[in-house]
Amino acid sequence: MYTVVLLRHGESVWNKENKFAGWTDVGLSPKGVQEAIEAGRYLKKEGYVFDLAFTSVLSRAIKTLWLVLEEMDLMWIPVYHNWRLNERHYGALQGLNKVETVNTFGMEQTQIWRRSYDTPPPPLTQDDPRWPGNDPRYASLKSEEIPLTECLKDTVARFLPYWHETIAPTIKTGKRVLIAAHGNSLRALVKYLDQISDEAIVSLNIPTGIPLVYELDEGLKPIRTFYLGDPEKVQAAIQAVANQLKGGKK
Amino acid sequence: MYTVVLLRHGESVWNKENKFAGWTDVGLSPKGVQEAIEAGRYLKKEGYVFDLAFTSVLSRAIKTLWLVLEEMDLMWIPVYHNWRLNERHYGALQGLNKVETVNTFGMEQTQIWRRSYDTPPPPLTQDDPRWPGNDPRYASLKSEEIPLTECLKDTVARFLPYWHETIAPTIKTGKRVLIAAHGNSLRALVKYLDQISDEAIVSLNIPTGIPLVYELDEGLKPIRTFYLGDPEKVQAAIQAVANQLKGGKK
Repeated sequence: MYTVVLLRHGESVWNKENKFAGWTDVGLSPKGVQEAIEAGRYLKKEGYVFDLAFTSVLSRAIKTLWLVLEEMDLMWIPVYHNWRLNERHYGALQGLNKVETVNTFGMEQTQIWRRSYDTPPPPLTQDDPRWPGNDPRYASLKSEEIPLTECLKDTVARFLPYWHETIAPTIKTGKRVLIAAHGNSLRALVKYLDQISDEAIVSLNIPTGIPLVYELDEGLKPIRTFYLGDPEKVQAAIQAVANQLKGGKK
Repeated sequence: MYTVVLLRHGESVWNKENKFAGWTDVGLSPKGVQEAIEAGRYLKKEGYVFDLAFTSVLSRAIKTLWLVLEEMDLMWIPVYHNWRLNERHYGALQGLNKVETVNTFGMEQTQIWRRSYDTPPPPLTQDDPRWPGNDPRYASLKSEEIPLTECLKDTVARFLPYWHETIAPTIKTGKRVLIAAHGNSLRALVKYLDQISDEAIVSLNIPTGIPLVYELDEGLKPIRTFYLGDPEKVQAAIQAVANQLKGGKK
């Protein structure tokens, strides 16, 4: 049996400002920093140890990971960064305030972009300063790999090769793996592991800063899944997810 | 021509408490944190960029590196940890206060342990709680690789294989490399690069938190070497090194 722990980064400054971040490299808010520290403390207290960690190339996930590793006295373990663990690319919506977006494009359209499994937001153009091709961290990508926008389906499609080629084989060697990533790259993984339908995944959310433990069998099928943390906070986070589910079904 | 930047970690809590640290995993002092942040700011301001970084498996070097990368917007670059970049192992002196050591063993003996190129401090025994073989970060080492004590000559001997096999070939691929390490592992490198004699190296010290830039020719021979930072602070650090030189010659 294998154990892998998933961790969505703590609150970012743009979560707080209610802006679409996507691949924009925004930092953690002070609350996000605290969430990460608490996640690390809880993991340590519960006796978790990791041999290595995977994360994205975005600072908010990396910083979350660093804070966790510092709390766990595991700063020295290998960390692998990969763009395939990045947040969903939000296209031309990146940097827009969510309320402004509703005012400009209407509620229905905005909800489709946020919640639909296979309808991406409007794409960036390559001359847009937000185009990832200008950022050195994506210099090794082929041009067709650089997204102009993504729906969750696109995020699943670019995340899964990294799971199959790198993360899953690592887990199968017996290494204890921590994955510090983003709401949508982790939803992509959860969708795959738990075989969630395209319809059901749109209303599943993962709370920030709460370790999500997967116990997997030899074929990496989930045996048991649970959130880890202060029981009251976990309950509140699960309730928030449930409320988001409700919101998604309205 | 290649450029590689060496950075000794900022002040640690044991630097401050005047204790021998060696492989003890002590953290940075608040001053050490500030030194690292300033090093990162200065490197960024001067237009330095790194493609990857090497560091030890000790938290004070890793934390220094993380603070630098955060200031430089380079949190996403690959970081390689290796025990061969660790501080010199201080043997049975680890954890002792330097004044206590003088009181116990005498000034002359203590100076020999601190300054001699080839006389190591008294060794640990394998049943000592400080023996590195109990620490998971050294689990992959062969038992003969785990030091019980080290003189600088020993540190040179275990550092250089990593330089030759990993760091030097990486620099020759054209990657811009940052090495965040310790007083003695960096002295080992400087001794090798600048071909400093066994006698002269004992009185050479590298200040904490000030980037040391090496410009190297195609064969990795130094063309130019300089410290980088606020000119006043660099001057003070160089003066401190000069004073340490004087001290060493007494």
